[in-house]
Amino acid sequence: MDDQDGGGYGRIGNLPDEDPTLTRVGLGTPMGELLRRYWHPIARSEQATPLPLEVRVLGEDLVLYRDMSGTPGLLTPRCCHRGTTLSIGKVEDQGIRCAYHGWLFAADGQCLDQPCEPDRGRNKDSYRQPWYPVVEYNGLIFAYLGPADRQPAFPRYDIFEDLGDDEEIVIIDHFAFGGPVEAPCNWFQTHENAMDPYHVFILHNAISGPQFDPKLEIWPRIDWQRHDWGVTATQDRDLPDGTTLHRVTEVRMPTMRVIPTPTLSVLGKTNNLSWALPIDDSHTHVYAMVRKPKEQPPQGLPIYGGEKRSFAPTDDEHPLYPGDYETQVGQGPITLHSEEKLSSSDRGVSMMRRQYKDQVELVANGGDPVGVTYDDANALVSVIAGNYIIGPDTDLETVPLPESLTQR
Amino acid sequence: MDDQDGGGYGRIGNLPDEDPTLTRVGLGTPMGELLRRYWHPIARSEQATPLPLEVRVLGEDLVLYRDMSGTPGLLTPRCCHRGTTLSIGKVEDQGIRCAYHGWLFAADGQCLDQPCEPDRGRNKDSYRQPWYPVVEYNGLIFAYLGPADRQPAFPRYDIFEDLGDDEEIVIIDHFAFGGPVEAPCNWFQTHENAMDPYHVFILHNAISGPQFDPKLEIWPRIDWQRHDWGVTATQDRDLPDGTTLHRVTEVRMPTMRVIPTPTLSVLGKTNNLSWALPIDDSHTHVYAMVRKPKEQPPQGLPIYGGEKRSFAPTDDEHPLYPGDYETQVGQGPITLHSEEKLSSSDRGVSMMRRQYKDQVELVANGGDPVGVTYDDANALVSVIAGNYIIGPDTDLETVPLPESLTQR
Amino acid sequence: MDDQDGGGYGRIGNLPDEDPTLTRVGLGTPMGELLRRYWHPIARSEQATPLPLEVRVLGEDLVLYRDMSGTPGLLTPRCCHRGTTLSIGKVEDQGIRCAYHGWLFAADGQCLDQPCEPDRGRNKDSYRQPWYPVVEYNGLIFAYLGPADRQPAFPRYDIFEDLGDDEEIVIIDHFAFGGPVEAPCNWFQTHENAMDPYHVFILHNAISGPQFDPKLEIWPRIDWQRHDWGVTATQDRDLPDGTTLHRVTEVRMPTMRVIPTPTLSVLGKTNNLSWALPIDDSHTHVYAMVRKPKEQPPQGLPIYGGEKRSFAPTDDEHPLYPGDYETQVGQGPITLHSEEKLSSSDRGVSMMRRQYKDQVELVANGGDPVGVTYDDANALVSVIAGNYIIGPDTDLETVPLPESLTQR
Repeated sequence: MDDQDGGGYGRIGNLPDEDPTLTRVGLGTPMGELLRRYWHPIARSEQATPLPLEVRVLGEDLVLYRDMSGTPGLLTPRCCHRGTTLSIGKVEDQGIRCAYHGWLFAADGQCLDQPCEPDRGRNKDSYRQPWYPVVEYNGLIFAYLGPADRQPAFPRYDIFEDLGDDEEIVIIDHFAFGGPVEAPCNWFQTHENAMDPYHVFILHNAISGPQFDPKLEIWPRIDWQRHDWGVTATQDRDLPDGTTLHRVTEVRMPTMRVIPTPTLSVLGKTNNLSWALPIDDSHTHVYAMVRKPKEQPPQGLPIYGGEKRSFAPTDDEHPLYPGDYETQVGQGPITLHSEEKLSSSDRGVSMMRRQYKDQVELVANGGDPVGVTYDDANALVSVIAGNYIIGPDTDLETVPLPESLTQR
Repeated sequence: MDDQDGGGYGRIGNLPDEDPTLTRVGLGTPMGELLRRYWHPIARSEQATPLPLEVRVLGEDLVLYRDMSGTPGLLTPRCCHRGTTLSIGKVEDQGIRCAYHGWLFAADGQCLDQPCEPDRGRNKDSYRQPWYPVVEYNGLIFAYLGPADRQPAFPRYDIFEDLGDDEEIVIIDHFAFGGPVEAPCNWFQTHENAMDPYHVFILHNAISGPQFDPKLEIWPRIDWQRHDWGVTATQDRDLPDGTTLHRVTEVRMPTMRVIPTPTLSVLGKTNNLSWALPIDDSHTHVYAMVRKPKEQPPQGLPIYGGEKRSFAPTDDEHPLYPGDYETQVGQGPITLHSEEKLSSSDRGVSMMRRQYKDQVELVANGGDPVGVTYDDANALVSVIAGNYIIGPDTDLETVPLPESLTQR
Repeated sequence: MDDQDGGGYGRIGNLPDEDPTLTRVGLGTPMGELLRRYWHPIARSEQATPLPLEVRVLGEDLVLYRDMSGTPGLLTPRCCHRGTTLSIGKVEDQGIRCAYHGWLFAADGQCLDQPCEPDRGRNKDSYRQPWYPVVEYNGLIFAYLGPADRQPAFPRYDIFEDLGDDEEIVIIDHFAFGGPVEAPCNWFQTHENAMDPYHVFILHNAISGPQFDPKLEIWPRIDWQRHDWGVTATQDRDLPDGTTLHRVTEVRMPTMRVIPTPTLSVLGKTNNLSWALPIDDSHTHVYAMVRKPKEQPPQGLPIYGGEKRSFAPTDDEHPLYPGDYETQVGQGPITLHSEEKLSSSDRGVSMMRRQYKDQVELVANGGDPVGVTYDDANALVSVIAGNYIIGPDTDLETVPLPESLTQR
């Protein structure tokens, strides 16, 4: 094969392909339109305040604020009158007022006042600032950036229902336990990592020293399962005490990855899940939602190898103790699928790509993608990821086994 | 209307239009050619020294220096011999010498010496460094960047003539009283602001607290007048003492805006005027020329709202107490006319745009734009802007009233 | 001529030409392909360590490392498996291992291990990371980035052969004696300077004060000679003692410039030579190799003019005491040949350009450029540059005179 010739000369093609169908997130792009059919977390609730905040979501620059009545609003920044940014607007009881000529807009974009026009705007009802609907849920602000007639019901998740008095839900902005919260790379390469269990043995162990629970060093039986709603990976490890550690991770349309804590400090079904927010084509923010006892820290956090046992490596330490952040950002701003050599251990990655391409095509053909419902009664999602210990007395009905997982 | 649908999805067109006819300033662009038919201030006199200074004017990078005989010169930086920048050249009695091979150029570009050539350059007369003519006037250096056969007479202004012994003229680099002197936005959106009196009641009062004289808080009768040479706005306020404050502002081809001090510390005809220098398509510098008594500060400066009463807000204070700088820069590097919704209060803005488009077309068709004269005897300009108090005893002949203003 | 009209208006063409045939260095460009037929210095030996180093050579981003057995390797950074950068890989006894999934590559790119694949990679022999061959020579790492079947013998240089016990060879990264070691400009404009002896009298004397030995202030007879392998310049100066200082400088394919020390502290044949490394189209690094007595500093270094007598001017001092760095960087990132006016004193520059264009064409037509040999026995290069003193007793056979130089 041509790999075998004597060097790198001419090996880098002129037009390597980053797989634009899967990686572009802008308006009108294939994946961008798929993503615009779901709700996305765009900020923590406490970031929506009377001081307007500039946010970028799916490549769109927006202004987030919360008016004095407590209603959050998400508007395009360029005032529809003369174009000054609403990021310097003044928030009022109802809406935000442009600093230049005072047009006032409600959270649904409706113009409420035009103080320099006769009668404060005889036609003001006909002006509307471009806006997006938002929902607050457990400390996160979610927004829907898609077509108005396709706005889905807002989904809830079983693991965050029926909270006990001693429990709470917290939001953690992080990038896979160790790294800056915003990663300068495409969201999809961060997403694929969730269906790549093999890298744990290399990156999180052999390369950087054990970063997770020692039990995860035991080599498992690994399999992947495709579902309507996403992909799961199962890892089964025979533990010294005769039980089996059955670990299930999942990715779920559109950007959710459910990774039970790798410190194994929570057993059974997972207590957390994460969303990747595609800021734009080459920047990603990860929000994690964690259910926990009020008196305890969120969960066991991974440690770093060698002499480094820290959650937040310095710039100098990143290359010495690489983790998820370093390897995913190290694939470049948008990784090049055309330059890869996928192997048998990458089957989960391939499975994900096929599924996302199917959903992209479905949306392009006018359909509704998986997981979208317009009925609030159907909007409760049941996740299955977890660290399950299977012993002789375990009721297998309570465990999502590979066999059952593949029954579609 | 389509504004009324449910959100921002798809609202941002792919090709919003910044109105390139009005906003581009480069060589060969419509407005660029109109601007190249006038003299522009490019630096304060004290900035022209034997240490060459890099300046950018209408998108062209140039080198300004003053030779030992006191003559300022404005040359293109790339030496016509081998291309080294003259910004590291050595200024001599007559001209500037390139540091690489020593070619010496006069302020009119003429090559005076080629020390490495036989007989120090037998053909040196045939080499000329690209250059532009400059004129010094009241502490500013003006340059003409247009075609040589269309170089107009240098204009003077009546308000700076016949200076008394106790008077002086000073130059203030500022951006509309509060803000960095260089604004990262297109010059035309800064220029339009001068014909937008309504924003004063919002931006400079309701939003940021009173920034100007309290009398300006009185709601006026506002009108605009188009003239051959520009546009004026008149604001008439009935004062408590029975007199009328008749305030006139003007914009004048090509980049002049004449705004009588908004602190009302100078009554009658204005004591100052300003030029916007288009540095390039997205950067603007404003030079103000002020006539004043030697013993007094230039004029009352505006104060800032809330607890902030400063001429120079910090970076943190800019969004909290927005002023002209924030709202004009907040329109983006080049604002998008296609995304605006001009209303009745924007009539002055519309009037300006029509006039500039007319002049652009006139120049494109080979004509000379308004205000250009080739006769020094006709080069004295009489401005009309001012803060005029009209009482029962006022001689109305001394006041530029709207009726007279509209007689063309 | 049109230079004579009244100013700079319209003088800057829309498409000035930087002579892309000579200045572009990327894969597939005319000069890029010529350069890819030679070995280039890419780093000092001590920079190749077990900590991978990112380097850029001819516009290609690469990773340099040295494995635990001492072998240096130069690979493309994007791992051929999933694309993570090998700059965060772990160096082992033989090769470098990707941090993500552990593929191990030897210095010749061969994949040696795939730990996540069955049997650690049954087909691993068929995978090869793009790589380039490297050679260490006298403290520099050289690499060959061209087609495998055209890899030339590695050249040696007579002036570095047969080192005495009291001698050593040192590497100096510098930019022509004064300036940062990396210059933000195209390599070719730095290279031309070596055939431009006239600038010495201006730049290094009249402009910045005497930077070299006072004898170089004497105006010489200057001539240039074209050879198969490059171009030489000769300068003959009649010294007060009746002898002649015969100074010869040379440029040699592809990027070598041999400049005998301008401090004249070494007489006879030169003790040093330099390579310009084209980092990319607009960045250049210069490596100098110097032979010297162990007990002495490398050689006399030039001094700076005026009050400044320093090898390393500060940022503020660069424009005040310009040297080679300032004038070459001052030509812009890539100088514009189309805007030049070459004169009689630029004959050496013209000669170089013609020769490089001939060689570019030769390679484009499938030939081997000058200086390339595939036989190690022919790979010893004899340089001729030097500061030769010719007196009545001098054996002229030992001096490379212009007459002999032009015999081809």
